[in-house]
Amino acid sequence: MTILFCATGWSNELWSDALARYLPGRDISIHGRDAYDPASVRHALVWRQPHGLFRPMTHLEHVFVLGAGVDKVMSDPDLPPCPIARVVDPDLTMRMTEWVTLQVLAHHRRFRTHLAQQAERRWHQAQQWPASAVRVGIMGFGHLGRDAAEVLARLGFRVAGWSRTAHSVPGVETFSGAAGLAPFLARTDILVVLLPLTPDTTGVLDRDLFVGLARDGVFGGPILINAGRGGLQVEGDIIAALDDGTLAAATLDVFETEPLPASSPLWAHPKITITPHNAADSDADTISRLVARQIERVEAGLPADHLVDRTLGY
Amino acid sequence: MTILFCATGWSNELWSDALARYLPGRDISIHGRDAYDPASVRHALVWRQPHGLFRPMTHLEHVFVLGAGVDKVMSDPDLPPCPIARVVDPDLTMRMTEWVTLQVLAHHRRFRTHLAQQAERRWHQAQQWPASAVRVGIMGFGHLGRDAAEVLARLGFRVAGWSRTAHSVPGVETFSGAAGLAPFLARTDILVVLLPLTPDTTGVLDRDLFVGLARDGVFGGPILINAGRGGLQVEGDIIAALDDGTLAAATLDVFETEPLPASSPLWAHPKITITPHNAADSDADTISRLVARQIERVEAGLPADHLVDRTLGY
Ligand SMILES: NC(=O)c1ccc[n+]([C@@H]2O[C@H](COP(=O)([O-])OP(=O)(O)OC[C@H]3O[C@@H](n4cnc5c(N)ncnc54)[C@H](OP(=O)(O)O)[C@@H]3O)[C@@H](O)[C@H]2O)c1
Ligand SMILES: NC(=O)c1ccc[n+]([C@@H]2O[C@H](COP(=O)([O-])OP(=O)(O)OC[C@H]3O[C@@H](n4cnc5c(N)ncnc54)[C@H](OP(=O)(O)O)[C@@H]3O)[C@@H](O)[C@H]2O)c1
Repeated sequence: MTILFCATGWSNELWSDALARYLPGRDISIHGRDAYDPASVRHALVWRQPHGLFRPMTHLEHVFVLGAGVDKVMSDPDLPPCPIARVVDPDLTMRMTEWVTLQVLAHHRRFRTHLAQQAERRWHQAQQWPASAVRVGIMGFGHLGRDAAEVLARLGFRVAGWSRTAHSVPGVETFSGAAGLAPFLARTDILVVLLPLTPDTTGVLDRDLFVGLARDGVFGGPILINAGRGGLQVEGDIIAALDDGTLAAATLDVFETEPLPASSPLWAHPKITITPHNAADSDADTISRLVARQIERVEAGLPADHLVDRTLGY
Repeated sequence: MTILFCATGWSNELWSDALARYLPGRDISIHGRDAYDPASVRHALVWRQPHGLFRPMTHLEHVFVLGAGVDKVMSDPDLPPCPIARVVDPDLTMRMTEWVTLQVLAHHRRFRTHLAQQAERRWHQAQQWPASAVRVGIMGFGHLGRDAAEVLARLGFRVAGWSRTAHSVPGVETFSGAAGLAPFLARTDILVVLLPLTPDTTGVLDRDLFVGLARDGVFGGPILINAGRGGLQVEGDIIAALDDGTLAAATLDVFETEPLPASSPLWAHPKITITPHNAADSDADTISRLVARQIERVEAGLPADHLVDRTLGY
């Protein structure tokens, strides 16, 4: 039986070394490098696998997604009927918390305005509000959202979270479901999006949503920060909202099409900050260790951890 | 008896309103606005007071400095013999922690590199280390340094602090005194300076110190972040160290001369990020409340809190 690794855009060498470290003596094949019999694959370890990969894998027992987002697997027309598990990796979570904290603080403390002043050799101290005057709303309050919330609350921001089901987190106001969305948006100055991409969340970041955000905050308009998935956002609506003042600024790590095409108007928009889908990298070493633990579990007859709900899509 | 307020660069209206709120019914004079008899002044509330202010105040009982840094008072040739107290304000501390966290993360996550890539419409994911691969050293481990350390440690950075006397903080490596300086610097990739300016610390950030920083870190060279006071740094040495690779980058909030003159080479240096001495503003409302409490204390016969040690200068 074979363990297959298949990741688009990642280093085969790095991952094959790391997997060999934590799965010694196992038959591990690297898609695109090694010849393997698809019918012998029991565990598929994937990241942005090409559609069609699973079709000939007639004896597949588990799909282990090597990151937090499973949308690429769930949208596969040949999605196998076996259990699908995602990674919950404290290293990945911490990286996302770094990124979210940085992007929230960069808006709050006007990092780009200070760079512009520096370029003009201009010494100007604008009025600066404390974090306690700023309401951050975290849309998608799962493993990533809740950790970021904790750090932002420690920094003094007024933090709220919105999720499908109700959660209770000390020091954070929580909202849930369709009924909770409007009041959540209405109290949010900086919207941080950490939702998974599912049929329910596709295109949710549109004009209708932006007009529901708070307009009485200290920034003169709400700010959008999206590190969930590009499919959550309607990019034409973001640009229109920035241009007519419905949004004051946006920071985007994810895009409808990735890599973001050079022709996209997002690149040069003065109110948009772009990072190239690297808010939270998957670390080959820590994730290989977690996957090896998962394989031990299932081979001991236990269910894998962090299984994806096929109906919900995450 | 008079309470005198004298601050350079701050709004007299804002502060006189705030002081009136917390010291109702008291005789409060605003220097430069109100006529007052210097001999009647018992409590002087000052920020960057002009030298000469204290000379005619023959009955001064207390100087209350309206911020964390007392260097401007301590260097006054007419420094009165009465007790001098500083402000320890959680609001101010939190603001500094925001600024330090932002500046450390901006280097760690290459904020300016991403802006440059965006300007070129370039999608490039560089290797990104987790915070746990980065050693932050906080030089000056007092009220401000210790709070910033707590947040940086929560984000996963390996944090150390250096101070005059020994401190013990959970999760943080601590060093103290002259003997502790070299080992502290040798393990530091990002040096955050939150020292007070005293005769002992003047010009401490010079070439000799920079060469002692770690050279085996993930950034290819050490990074300097100074929000203490401009008098701590030798600006010519910073530029030379950036130019010859002894330092990889610097973020400065404070300068030898403030406002930073338009002619300064710091403005246009590509490895320097500048903020205009606004890392942590003093809030008129919270600080007026704290000063009112101090005046209550001393009028009840208690010593003021947060007294400055005249020998040490902070
Ligand atoms: N940019 C990057 O580098 C990067 C890196 C890693 C992950 N990500 C993205 O981040 C996403 C979140 O990761 P995670 O680990 O936090 O996932 P998670 O633990 O599954 O959390 C997802 C959150 O979204 C909520 N949610 C899902 N569908 C919803 C709906 N229809 N309405 C309202 N709330 C809904 C969930 O609600 P419940 O709590 O009620 O279930 C949960 O709070 C991933 O799916 C991935 O797309 C991006
Ligand atoms: N840029 C801004 O906006 C801004 C705003 C506020 C304050 N500041 C600056 O920040 C400074 C620090 O504020 P703070 O409230 O943290 O002050 P603090 O509580 O008095 O702490 C000062 C720290 O520096 C250490 N120290 C002093 N002299 C030293 C020496 N010769 N060698 C080694 N360590 C020495 C002290 O050691 P011990 O712990 O052993 O006493 C202490 O750890 C202020 O003095 C001010 O200059 C800047």
